[in-house]
This record gives sequence, structure tokens and C-alpha cells, in this order.
Amino acid sequence: MSDNEKIKKVSIIISKGSLEGIYPGLIMANGARMKGIEANVFFTFFGLDAITKNKMNKIKVATVGNPAMGIPTLVGAAPGMSALATTMMKKQMEELDIPPIPEFVEMIHDAGGGMYACLASVEMFKLKKEDFCDQVKGILTIGDFYDISAGGEIIFT
Amino acid sequence: MSDNEKIKKVSIIISKGSLEGIYPGLIMANGARMKGIEANVFFTFFGLDAITKNKMNKIKVATVGNPAMGIPTLVGAAPGMSALATTMMKKQMEELDIPPIPEFVEMIHDAGGGMYACLASVEMFKLKKEDFCDQVKGILTIGDFYDISAGGEIIFT
Amino acid sequence: MSDNEKIKKVSIIISKGSLEGIYPGLIMANGARMKGIEANVFFTFFGLDAITKNKMNKIKVATVGNPAMGIPTLVGAAPGMSALATTMMKKQMEELDIPPIPEFVEMIHDAGGGMYACLASVEMFKLKKEDFCDQVKGILTIGDFYDISAGGEIIFT
Repeated sequence: MSDNEKIKKVSIIISKGSLEGIYPGLIMANGARMKGIEANVFFTFFGLDAITKNKMNKIKVATVGNPAMGIPTLVGAAPGMSALATTMMKKQMEELDIPPIPEFVEMIHDAGGGMYACLASVEMFKLKKEDFCDQVKGILTIGDFYDISAGGEIIFT
Repeated sequence: MSDNEKIKKVSIIISKGSLEGIYPGLIMANGARMKGIEANVFFTFFGLDAITKNKMNKIKVATVGNPAMGIPTLVGAAPGMSALATTMMKKQMEELDIPPIPEFVEMIHDAGGGMYACLASVEMFKLKKEDFCDQVKGILTIGDFYDISAGGEIIFT
Repeated sequence: MSDNEKIKKVSIIISKGSLEGIYPGLIMANGARMKGIEANVFFTFFGLDAITKNKMNKIKVATVGNPAMGIPTLVGAAPGMSALATTMMKKQMEELDIPPIPEFVEMIHDAGGGMYACLASVEMFKLKKEDFCDQVKGILTIGDFYDISAGGEIIFT
């Protein structure tokens, strides 16, 4: 370490609604808490699905638009392919002891991580506080987000 | 707020060319200016479309590769679906008083936000200074970008 | 520059496995080294392809899910379209003197940039140290990553 000042806080923004779009942010938040780093997660745009009660159990993998998956687009577009890739990724996560999204959100929350929804996105999708899981601490404006993030690293995923 | 030092500056990179890829960065830049935080926006790769005169009015939503939209891939791929989703998102933004891309760029500029194009991307797409809207202050190298970003938060969207 | 403190270090996370998902992070790492800024690159999720020996030569452009490419989805999904767009982007990069991925990784490494793989992703894809190119300095946990990133900017691409 070339610097004697440690990271004190991370503010992670989750903006995508696919499994591979949500996991990196949660893994980084969890890793921060395990190091004793303050961690807050802000869910915005489609990322809100990860904390929305009737959606957080149904998050899928995107099988098109990602050539790294090695699935030709026409095959990836076939009905059922996303479900298949989703089952595979869930199994891989389980082998790594990384829990499904709802349990992961709960785990990070219980480890002291703050979970917040972005106000503009909440209004855009016409959601309410009660649509979110219990771990969500509040709905914040961008301004509130900058206040909470001061003195740390902002990571947009 | 656990820290008495506020955020002084944000440097936001917009690298995607879809509506849902461009709005988060602009919303964060606007929110920063409303808090009195210095905000600079750097448009790179496909994000350049947001400041390119003959493209900034025609930005669309991506209807495939995003399972959170709830549109099956084969349906999302049908001609017209992207236009439909684009119309819907534009209406949602309007309800939130978030302006269309060109007006939003102008608004952030008028509020003191700096708008910059990334040199490597400008050369890659063979664009010129005059292809960009008037709000663009300059074309910067990555090195210039790091200079301008010093002392703040870098947010890659 | 409104601040007399320069950026000392950047920690860039590359999480996507398409050409247009990998290049921005490498370009930012290279630009940092050219300014004398310490640069470390962490490859995670599909971004691991960029340092995996039998994949780093075969990275492709995503031709669907990106309306900015101007390719209708059904055309983008046609066999061969991704290969065509990949050839075009490679040519554009070559004109800008930006090398292909493997040479670019080597160049940044030789300029002093640190290349690291993310442990959770390495396990998820069941990879081993010897699957990576020689420039990879190590496999890190998220905790290690935060240690290495202290005192700099974290940029998630």
C-alpha cells in the first residue's frame, strides 16, 4: 500500500437491473463491510428492481448484448435462454457462497450497510416506500446522496 | 454525515449512447450543481451522441440486453419497439420535469457545469468541434481530464 | 485546475467483456501512466476475458443492446454482424495508434500499471493463475482491492 490513509467509506450506485449488473455492486459493498469500511448502496433506474419486493426474486441474466457470454445473439434471444443463463449464474454464485439477491441485500444491511432508493427513479417508476424491502433505510435525492458520500469513494456500477 | 468535509467537485464520464445510459450522468451533474458542487461532464465513446448536434435529438432506449425492462428479447428486437420504449421514457422524464437531452445539456451548462468531449473518441468517430453543440467547452485528452478532476470524485457512468 | 492537489492514483475496474466495454478502462489506465499517475486495473466478471490467454485475442463488439451503434436489433443479431463491427472498431483503434487488447495490456503493464484479477470472479469462472497472461500480477479479494486503492480514485467501467 503506497498510502497510509485507508478508505473510510464507499458509496455504491447500482443502476442496472440484470443479475450481472447488480452483483458487482453488492459484492463490493459486502467486501467493504468485511473490511470495516462504511458502505452505502444507492439503487437507481433499473437497479431499483434489486430492492423492490415483487421483483428482487426474479432478477435475470441478460443473454444478448454481451458477446463475452459466448451465446450468439439469435440463440440468446430464444425464449428460455435468459432463464437458463440465470439458473447457471445462480448456481455459480451459490458455489461461491454468494447468496441470492434478497438474502444478499439483507446480509449487507445486517452488516451495517445502508440501503437507499433514488428519489427521481422512484418517481419515474411510480413506486412507493412500501414497495421496497424492509432493509431500505430511505429514499434520497441526488443532493442527499452527495452529502452521505462525502469523504469516501463513489462507485457507479 | 459522518465527515465534515463536503464533496467539492464531481467529474462525470458518460460513455453510453442510449437514453438510459445518458440520463444518470446528466442527473448526477445537475444534482451536483444544485448543491453548489463543481460539475464537469466528459462525453466519451457512444456517449458523444449526447452532445453531437445531429444526434442529440434522436437518442433511443435499448430494448434488448436489459431484462429489467420486462420485454422478451424477440419482442424487443421487433422494429418499432425501441421507438415505443423511447417515447415512454421521454414521457416519464417529462412528468419528473427532467428535460430532453439537448435542453438538459443546456441547463447544466447554464448552471455552470462544464461539458467536454474526449479527444480519442472524437478522433475515432472522425468528428470535429463544430459537430458538437455550443455548450461544449472543449475537447480533452485523458491527461487533461485527470487534471480537471483533481480534488474531486470521478464517476464513470 | 481549481485544486493544487493532483490525482496520485487510479484504480480502474473492468467488468465487461466486449471491446467497447474493455477499451475505456484501458485507455484511462494508459492515460494515467502517461501523466505519472499510479494505475491499477482490476478485471472482474466478464472483464476477465481481457487478460485470459485463450480469450483476449477474440474480444468482440456487442451489436445489440446499443442503439447508438445505429444497427437495428434484428440486423445486429444476424450471424456475422458482431464480427463485422469488431473488424471496424479494431481498424478505428489502429488508426488512433491504440493497440489490440493483448498488446495494450502489455503496454500498460510495461509502463508500470498493475494488472489484477478479482478472486470471486476467478472462482466463478473456475479459472487458474496460469489461465491469465503473464502481465497479471496477482489475484485479489475485494478487501485487497480496497487496500491497494486507498488514496486514489476508484473508477468502475
